[in-house]
Amino acid sequence: MNIHINRQSDESLHMQICRQMEDKIRSGLLGNGTKLPSLRKFAGQLKVNPLTINKAYKELEKKGYLDIIHGKGVFVKNQKDNGLPKNQYDWQSSLSHYLFRSQFFHHHQPRYQVQLSNAVIHAGLLPAHFLAKEIKKMLEEEPRALVTYSPVQGDEELRFEIAEYLAAHCSLETSMENVLITSGIQQAIELIAKTFIGPGDIVITEAPTYSAAIDVFLNRGAKMISVPVDEHGLRTDLLSQIIHKYPPKLIYVNPNFQNPTGTVMSLQRRKELLEMAQLHEAIIVEDDTFHELFFDNTPPPLSMKSLDRDGHVIYLKGFSKAIAPGVRIGAVVSDGAIPRLLTSAKASMDLGSPLLIQKAILPFFKTQRMLEHMEKLRIALQLRRDHTMEILKQYVDDHVSWVVPKGGLNLWLTFPKQINTDELLLELQKHSITFLPGSACYPYDPEFHHLRLSYSLLSEDELKKGVHAFGQLVKKYVEEKLGNSE
Amino acid sequence: MNIHINRQSDESLHMQICRQMEDKIRSGLLGNGTKLPSLRKFAGQLKVNPLTINKAYKELEKKGYLDIIHGKGVFVKNQKDNGLPKNQYDWQSSLSHYLFRSQFFHHHQPRYQVQLSNAVIHAGLLPAHFLAKEIKKMLEEEPRALVTYSPVQGDEELRFEIAEYLAAHCSLETSMENVLITSGIQQAIELIAKTFIGPGDIVITEAPTYSAAIDVFLNRGAKMISVPVDEHGLRTDLLSQIIHKYPPKLIYVNPNFQNPTGTVMSLQRRKELLEMAQLHEAIIVEDDTFHELFFDNTPPPLSMKSLDRDGHVIYLKGFSKAIAPGVRIGAVVSDGAIPRLLTSAKASMDLGSPLLIQKAILPFFKTQRMLEHMEKLRIALQLRRDHTMEILKQYVDDHVSWVVPKGGLNLWLTFPKQINTDELLLELQKHSITFLPGSACYPYDPEFHHLRLSYSLLSEDELKKGVHAFGQLVKKYVEEKLGNSE
Repeated sequence: MNIHINRQSDESLHMQICRQMEDKIRSGLLGNGTKLPSLRKFAGQLKVNPLTINKAYKELEKKGYLDIIHGKGVFVKNQKDNGLPKNQYDWQSSLSHYLFRSQFFHHHQPRYQVQLSNAVIHAGLLPAHFLAKEIKKMLEEEPRALVTYSPVQGDEELRFEIAEYLAAHCSLETSMENVLITSGIQQAIELIAKTFIGPGDIVITEAPTYSAAIDVFLNRGAKMISVPVDEHGLRTDLLSQIIHKYPPKLIYVNPNFQNPTGTVMSLQRRKELLEMAQLHEAIIVEDDTFHELFFDNTPPPLSMKSLDRDGHVIYLKGFSKAIAPGVRIGAVVSDGAIPRLLTSAKASMDLGSPLLIQKAILPFFKTQRMLEHMEKLRIALQLRRDHTMEILKQYVDDHVSWVVPKGGLNLWLTFPKQINTDELLLELQKHSITFLPGSACYPYDPEFHHLRLSYSLLSEDELKKGVHAFGQLVKKYVEEKLGNSE
Repeated sequence: MNIHINRQSDESLHMQICRQMEDKIRSGLLGNGTKLPSLRKFAGQLKVNPLTINKAYKELEKKGYLDIIHGKGVFVKNQKDNGLPKNQYDWQSSLSHYLFRSQFFHHHQPRYQVQLSNAVIHAGLLPAHFLAKEIKKMLEEEPRALVTYSPVQGDEELRFEIAEYLAAHCSLETSMENVLITSGIQQAIELIAKTFIGPGDIVITEAPTYSAAIDVFLNRGAKMISVPVDEHGLRTDLLSQIIHKYPPKLIYVNPNFQNPTGTVMSLQRRKELLEMAQLHEAIIVEDDTFHELFFDNTPPPLSMKSLDRDGHVIYLKGFSKAIAPGVRIGAVVSDGAIPRLLTSAKASMDLGSPLLIQKAILPFFKTQRMLEHMEKLRIALQLRRDHTMEILKQYVDDHVSWVVPKGGLNLWLTFPKQINTDELLLELQKHSITFLPGSACYPYDPEFHHLRLSYSLLSEDELKKGVHAFGQLVKKYVEEKLGNSE
């Protein structure tokens, strides 16, 4: 098991270990009943004194995360009495690994009914029948797409169409040579991290940010610096004060309808950020997943990539979320030496995305259907946002604040500081309701008094019912907590 | 203007045109300001669609080689004004990255006609029409597969069918809980390396081994140890002598029809290897890509995974190569704590493989078609192996040796030590013939006097012609070299 030990930190070694183990357990990376390494073995791996491990284990036991069973070992607490894992796999407990964090198990819990946790669009809003029809046509004309490898960089026809699309709809002039096809945005982030980020490299992100991007960078051993966002996006004024002290290798931002806050970075700040990247020879990763999902007929400002003249920006555009999640397609646009490096990383990662899914999504780029679909999606999502806010106001108006999202799928709620949304989640899960606790969106030192509510996954009806139920329970919880703390 | 059009090439027509025009412009053959033929005229000359020429011109314009002036025509750009080569990307030259090696660009050069380099099966041998029909049916019944995310671990139905398949055809009893779906074997190797391998960890492989696996482990910073193979597979006797000195974290092997040598590891050695892994608490990665592709009606011995009682073996099974390369599907079977870790790594890598490709391959597991297909494939591949060996004997019998492969797609040729196949490759590429030079198959200290010839990608006719041409050129090259060196 891997733990980042920082001997320069003010935090004691056993607390560093304790905090990171807690993260692993809370996020579900270490499952119930997992046997942990012995004191001596773990101490050896981390090059610390066994007493330090002992302290950390005891601390975690106190907090209710571990069971220390004399003569048997130390186990992640079995909260559901699943029975301890079979002994023949015990040797694996001392198998070190390089996953530092995974929010995944924590947040994808399909057994709950009211899913407000996933920023995913309801299947009914997506063009399944149109795509099915087009794919059937394609399979008749071109069945060889099934039995042929794609070029590693991606199908040429698709790269051409995506370059045209970005020029027409995202004000981004590029060439198919500069486009790399990936299996969704998540893989694009992974490819970039794999290529450019290693132990100790500084990665700057917005705070809060997309939780699965944090996982990727931490797993590469990055040192992460968080810069707060306000309603105009990343606080470039704050960044400019620290960037000299922490010169970043990479700055990951999500300027349009930011995940999780829904805010838009102003054009002014985009320019400032690009200038800082130029000055410090940093890479900007501009994740533009939500570009087309703007509300109030107001498209977002120019992308940094379109302002970039010297190859500082790597631009990511996902097409899965808003079109076809079963067909995972993302595109990476970069310049100079970077496309070749990323293509080579892609070769080593999976030899190229499946040709079938690339050919499957192609018709969408060649017809008017894309524009009509995006238009429809904007209307539907804006309605959902409005209903969600209206319902919430009936219940929690006094205790919760938010910035009205100008696009995207998410509403970021801020509570009084006494409220811990990790605890609130456990409470709501009892009623089969989930959301994303804000703590998932910070690499270190999380803020616990926020949560992200995604209004896109449920059907319109389910959403309304779900937000009512959510509002009632939250109101009750918050009032009790605030009552108690007064 | 003369352009070579190759309609058999994987490279699209417009890219062929584009690349060759670029060459002409860069070399100065087409001078600044030269007017190019109209779309229709040029298309007529090359016997292609005018849209193809249009695409090529647009691409060249984007790259700064052409000026398209409305109402006037298309001109080679005046490059003196343009100031080529551009240097705005120069800052990137100091951008460090973490890719240590990529054999990819070296070996995937689609412009050569006689492709003996890729261990890929000819599309004509694969069940494109059957799959197309089944996918069309699936899309009618279940269009939601297009607009729904897959579970990260993989579609449950597919995991169930794969577990059944492995029990029936690979003597491997497992449960769907232990199966993780990946986008092909390459991604499976990457996931395992990402999870378990970090700087300085020792990885043992066969020598020679699968070149893209070397890339993955080196990119993770592994220290690699190579253990030679003979006709009974990895030399466990040699491994047992060094394993104490170099205790491995992971041992990667390809026991059935090993890539690149085609040899089969004996049951005895499988057992010895498993014992060593148990003793040293190492992970064995057993890559069983070629299991079903055995010749002479002789299936391979029991897998190590089927002998594994305590979760030491991670078993990899690929289904893309032998069924549908456009539908990249692999499966990872593991036990104990490992499935959870790998699933979490998969979440961070791409949030799960596209549901469409998982549903697309499902019918194959549910019908007799799989068995008939594999039977046909074995016959076709064995014939190709035999033809290849017969033709080679006519030319190079005196100078080249090989172990007759008992299955799979590859023939591993060994030359006298004076012969360097990296050089030979350059020579053969002049005649548009490629193969995989042996040097790609070793992590350090390559042996240069081998090469891998894949007999699976070309059509039967192309293969015969290609191997004749290969044989003639190799004979000439080898005789000259040996003559010179005597």
